[in-house]
Formats: sequence, C-alpha cells, structure tokens
Amino acid sequence: MRIENNIILAMDLTDPAEALRVTGQVIDYIDTVKIGYPLVLAAGIECIQEFKEELQCQVIADFKVADIPETNEKICNITFKHGADAIIVHGFTGPDSIKACMDAANKIGGEIFLLTDMSHPGSGKFIGKVSEEIAKIGVQLGVENYVAPATKIESLKSIRRIVGDDAFIISPGVGFQGGEAIETLKFADAIIVGRTIYLSRNPRKTIKDLIDIL
Amino acid sequence: MRIENNIILAMDLTDPAEALRVTGQVIDYIDTVKIGYPLVLAAGIECIQEFKEELQCQVIADFKVADIPETNEKICNITFKHGADAIIVHGFTGPDSIKACMDAANKIGGEIFLLTDMSHPGSGKFIGKVSEEIAKIGVQLGVENYVAPATKIESLKSIRRIVGDDAFIISPGVGFQGGEAIETLKFADAIIVGRTIYLSRNPRKTIKDLIDIL
Repeated sequence: MRIENNIILAMDLTDPAEALRVTGQVIDYIDTVKIGYPLVLAAGIECIQEFKEELQCQVIADFKVADIPETNEKICNITFKHGADAIIVHGFTGPDSIKACMDAANKIGGEIFLLTDMSHPGSGKFIGKVSEEIAKIGVQLGVENYVAPATKIESLKSIRRIVGDDAFIISPGVGFQGGEAIETLKFADAIIVGRTIYLSRNPRKTIKDLIDIL
Repeated sequence: MRIENNIILAMDLTDPAEALRVTGQVIDYIDTVKIGYPLVLAAGIECIQEFKEELQCQVIADFKVADIPETNEKICNITFKHGADAIIVHGFTGPDSIKACMDAANKIGGEIFLLTDMSHPGSGKFIGKVSEEIAKIGVQLGVENYVAPATKIESLKSIRRIVGDDAFIISPGVGFQGGEAIETLKFADAIIVGRTIYLSRNPRKTIKDLIDIL
C-alpha cells in the first residue's frame, strides 16, 4: 500500500457529516483514512464508499476483527464489498481466524493488516506478551501488512525485525497517546494520527506542521 | 439476565429480512437473540431495535469488542443507545479496555458479557492459554456475565470455578461446532445455538426437539 506523506488519518468522530468535513480539510495532504466501528455503526457501512467517492481516498476499516473463522470471513466479505481497501485484523484469535480474513481479502482483491500489539496501557497484560509470536504467525501465513504501536517503540522495533524490511507496517498512538512521529517512522512505513488532527482547532495547519517536521 | 429455556439463538444470517423471518419461526420458544457484526454491518445497527420491537426479545450484541478503552467506550455507547440489552467484550485487550465497556454499560443500564475463551481450533494458540486469567480479571472488576465455550468443556468448567456460582455464563459452540448441550448446561446457564437452528429445514421443530431433550 502506498500512503501519501506516510500519514494515515484515524477518523474517529462519530458524526458522519462532521467526519467528512474535517477529513476534507486535510485531504490535500493525505490519501488514506482509517475508519473504525464508532463511525461505521453510527453512519452505516455505506460511509466507506462516501469517503472514497467524496474525498478520493483509500479507506482502511479498523474493525480489529476478532471472531471465529466463519464470522471473520463474513465480516471481511461485507467490508470489502462496501469499498474498503483494507481491514485490520486481530492475531490473538489464532491462525485460522487470520487465514479466514486473508482468504476473503485475496478473493475480492483487498488487503489485511495484522494487528500485532496495541497502544493502550492494558495491552501489556496479554497481547503485548505475545506480539512477536503473532508477527511470526503472520510471516508464516504470508501476511504483508502489519500494525504495531508507536507508544511501545521496542515492540515496534522487534516486530519490524520479525516481519522484515519488505513488510508494510503502520503505527498508531502518535500524538495524544504519546508516540513520537519521527522515531516511529524509523521502523514503520506510516503513522496513524487521530485526535491530534481531528480535535485540532485548525486540522489543516496541524497536519501541514506535522509533515514539515517529518 | 433471565433467558427462556436456557437457549440463545445466534442469528448469523446476513439478510435482514431472512434473519427476522427465521427468528420469528422460533420466537415462541426463546426470548434472547445474539446478533453479530455480519448482520449489523449488512442491515445497519437499527436492526437491533427491529428485532426487539418485532419479536419482543432481548438482544445481545456479539461485537467481541477488542479495541483501546476510548474506542471500546464509543462502540458500547452507540450499541446500547440502539437498544442492545448486552454486549460481548473481549478480555485479552486488558483490564482498562474491559473497564471502559463496563462503565459505558453501567451508565446506560446495559450489561456486558466478558469473553474468556473461544470455540474454534485456533483459539488454543493464545486466548485459550490465558482464559483463566481473563476470568480472574473479570471477577476483580466485578463482571457478572461471561462467555465460555461448549467445545472445550474443561475450559468451561474451570471458568465456572473461577467466576463462581452466582456469575452468569453463556456458552457458544453447541451443535455444528461440536459442543454437547446437556453437558454444557451443567456448567453454563444458557447455550448459544446458531447454525443448527437457522440452517435447519424446520427451525421450529429443531428448537422444540432440542428443548425436549434438555
């Protein structure tokens, strides 16, 4: 996946009109938006296509898919059918659950991102302890795209070592959650920035300033 | 939560009209339906209210919520606002992510079910190894409702030991996935049955037969 300026906007506003409006303010600088369940549940899954058509951007559905294989497949099928370019998938549920998402993506021509670790404090309890194992399963299965956190730079580094330089890593947690953009981009291909941009008084200036320092 | 005949219908058909029609065929025998993302993404989250109004049933949103606390809270808020009586929440994301869901539920008067283990083969890789720890975190946090799998009766038994007799356990995997109903109900308060009923040629007869043997 190619991502303009190596920045993905995490658009987590739940009012669809507001979400489109704020994204429109920064769309000259980015071409990839990450949308999650808060917005999709509030606006309907049709909002993926709306973002793509109105803003000519790629959409990553951050659904952190975490069900049994049969259900994962159904979730991925519906999501890709509604225009998502990629979907984020948990690895904690095991290889068969990941594989079901990969198969759905390959059939439709979409991509999956395998979530190896997370950015919040509680992630240290379970998922952080097996993040390297999850990454290794991804490599075994042939997963090309990964998510690893900017808030835990050591975890991000070790994920990069495991998945190799050809893999594509995107990294959430930059800004409000404490991750540092420049350091993160030494190991990740793109950073995911949400609240820092969409809660800014001037989102366009904020993203321009961010790009200037990168 | 009180559940008629100790059976929850997992309604995973993705065509909303068909899902309502088939549920209507068995609604004389049950009062609780579990709905997941495949149906909600296809039909819109308004389908929760439709089920409740047309069929006078309780709805458990099986969203296996597995995000950072801030996003978990948003997902729960939207889901309860749209009429869900309860929501299923992953525990492997850590105590803060669980707590965010509990707080949202308590504020609105909904309930959460904490998913301790899963029913598919790949669940043995990670989640199955920490299911007891997840249950213990649930107890510490004061969670009253749990999900534990019918396909792994030993796991279900140990979860029951940990959460105690007053906790409420629902158990998926009965039927197509191989779990046995009578044995499961020795340790769980209700079984979750999906494909065995909704793929049956005669769902009404299938559920009646199931109730007769319980």
